[in-house]
Amino acid sequence: MQYPNTSQVSASALRDWLQVIFLRLSFSEADAIQAADVLMMADLRGIDSHGVARLSGYIRLVEAGRINPKPQLQFTQRKRATGHLEADGAIGLVSAPFAMQKALEMTHECGSGWVGISNSNHFGIAAYHAMMALPHNYIGFSTTNASPLVTPAGGAERMLGTNPICVAVPAGNEPAFVLDMATAAAANGKLEIAERVQKPIPAGWALTQTGEDTTNASALKQGGMLLPLGSDADHGAHKGYGLGAWVDIFSGVLNGANFGPWVPPFVSFLQPRPDQPGKGLGHFVGAWDVDGFRDLADFQRDMDLWIQRFRATKPLHSNKPVIVPGEPEMQEYTVRQLQGIPLVEAVVKDLEAIGEALKHPFNP
Amino acid sequence: MQYPNTSQVSASALRDWLQVIFLRLSFSEADAIQAADVLMMADLRGIDSHGVARLSGYIRLVEAGRINPKPQLQFTQRKRATGHLEADGAIGLVSAPFAMQKALEMTHECGSGWVGISNSNHFGIAAYHAMMALPHNYIGFSTTNASPLVTPAGGAERMLGTNPICVAVPAGNEPAFVLDMATAAAANGKLEIAERVQKPIPAGWALTQTGEDTTNASALKQGGMLLPLGSDADHGAHKGYGLGAWVDIFSGVLNGANFGPWVPPFVSFLQPRPDQPGKGLGHFVGAWDVDGFRDLADFQRDMDLWIQRFRATKPLHSNKPVIVPGEPEMQEYTVRQLQGIPLVEAVVKDLEAIGEALKHPFNP
Repeated sequence: MQYPNTSQVSASALRDWLQVIFLRLSFSEADAIQAADVLMMADLRGIDSHGVARLSGYIRLVEAGRINPKPQLQFTQRKRATGHLEADGAIGLVSAPFAMQKALEMTHECGSGWVGISNSNHFGIAAYHAMMALPHNYIGFSTTNASPLVTPAGGAERMLGTNPICVAVPAGNEPAFVLDMATAAAANGKLEIAERVQKPIPAGWALTQTGEDTTNASALKQGGMLLPLGSDADHGAHKGYGLGAWVDIFSGVLNGANFGPWVPPFVSFLQPRPDQPGKGLGHFVGAWDVDGFRDLADFQRDMDLWIQRFRATKPLHSNKPVIVPGEPEMQEYTVRQLQGIPLVEAVVKDLEAIGEALKHPFNP
Repeated sequence: MQYPNTSQVSASALRDWLQVIFLRLSFSEADAIQAADVLMMADLRGIDSHGVARLSGYIRLVEAGRINPKPQLQFTQRKRATGHLEADGAIGLVSAPFAMQKALEMTHECGSGWVGISNSNHFGIAAYHAMMALPHNYIGFSTTNASPLVTPAGGAERMLGTNPICVAVPAGNEPAFVLDMATAAAANGKLEIAERVQKPIPAGWALTQTGEDTTNASALKQGGMLLPLGSDADHGAHKGYGLGAWVDIFSGVLNGANFGPWVPPFVSFLQPRPDQPGKGLGHFVGAWDVDGFRDLADFQRDMDLWIQRFRATKPLHSNKPVIVPGEPEMQEYTVRQLQGIPLVEAVVKDLEAIGEALKHPFNP
């Protein structure tokens, strides 16, 4: 997706600036580096909705006292291969990598390891956390719940977040398989893009506040709701709902975080509900060691074959080859490392305002 | 779904008959009981496509030498929480419960346990295996790959099975949450039902052999293919494809079973490809101990709240409440235990022919 009026910003300059901003927000040095790294990974992979474009949202949550910039993370290992992290109101950009590190240590011991996280906040792209497994030749997994925007199948009420699932699988010579998907038919970022260019959205993405079908890109802002993957009863909306529900249960109910309609909203101008059953929002991360199932070299050979065979699928349109999940993001990563990150004018203005307020000008 | 011309058959009589049939196929007594139990669970839960209606298909695979009725299951524990089962050509109705039992033992030790299975065959409903975790207050997980019928998003080639994912989560006083879903927009059973009643299928379920959109219920039989959950590019078909791919990698590539287009077909009249990279088809099963993340009583209280709150979602149609995954199957289970299992005429005829051939008449 190309926008008009973009500025190309070098990745290293943006990273340096971001780290200072997090320091100005009273993050520790290690946490500032970690938080900046997660946002940078999103921008480098081309997931523009989840990178620096979100920075002002996180800052407003710090200012509202809902993100704790100096959390005391409390990890409890409850079994040999499982544990719980009480995140003390941390930003998810910090708590989820911490938890994944614990999960990787348990995977080293047991072949698999899992951590549930409560009292956290938005964790950026799910892929960051799952992909931490890849250098170890482990398979990584991550989920999070999020602000309720999606209705269950057959419902007309915001009950679930766009609740992503990420699975990252290492290969041999081929790049890793990385599936990172929202469980809604379309994430809210897609509605925002359509709204910006004043185009209707496809039927099957959203309902109005009263449950009518709609192609209005502003439906969500006008009190409507997103539909689960599958969109309608004929096309398996109960499956997308089931996946989003699974993520909600693993991220929220299993860890003592909030769940369903009680998940605290990302936007600081909406207050969390007073009757919350849990703490903050939750994530669930973990890993499997490939060698726990099969000799690594054999797996790598077959995983490369899998990727090559699927890439060679007979395409529906001869000029559009079938994509292996994660491949476009990997290519974008390489390009943006070299050529810089394109930022749209609105984001640049946003970052300039942040830089001014925190006395660290944005002029990379 | 009600069909005309159904016979009501008592569950216990059907189970007894099934066990003898498996014995006549040279299964051991324990394996006959196990295989019958998985088929009965499907019929009791109302998953008619995966119960005794499949019996003749399994028998043809035994007769073709593709299912080994006397397998030597070889389990290798490779890590504390992970292992591999070489199933020696077993029916999946036997190998998957065996593997899940090993996974549950590792879960008892470590809080989580996982087994990958190779050289297996069709394992019935995924829910059976995942639900084995529930009596232990563990969360169960199961996947399998299957005969290639589904095209990747943007493709026009049968590359994936309907590759189900099942997650079974215990609750407190409420029934368990059981998500058991094919990763295609619609499973082939749904096309067969439409074909039987001579109705068109919705657009978005299938493509013709040449990749055209179709509403022809016979499309699959005429060489066409199923579409992944999401159906098209606008509605997230890349997500359904990604989920099916994940299942294929975990069930096949991770365990040395076949994957993608090489998965051996369920129907005995189609031969497995000569260039198979693996053995048989594969499954992946495992569990997490709830207590590995949070005190069980707290989890049960919140899981009950989750279920009650989602059941109370504002419905789209006032007479159709939102469904919690697994609830309709649980209700059907209770009804069918008491009132018997309705079998359509074609299935009754099929079972009668089996009974005659194996000298154990079907007249329950």
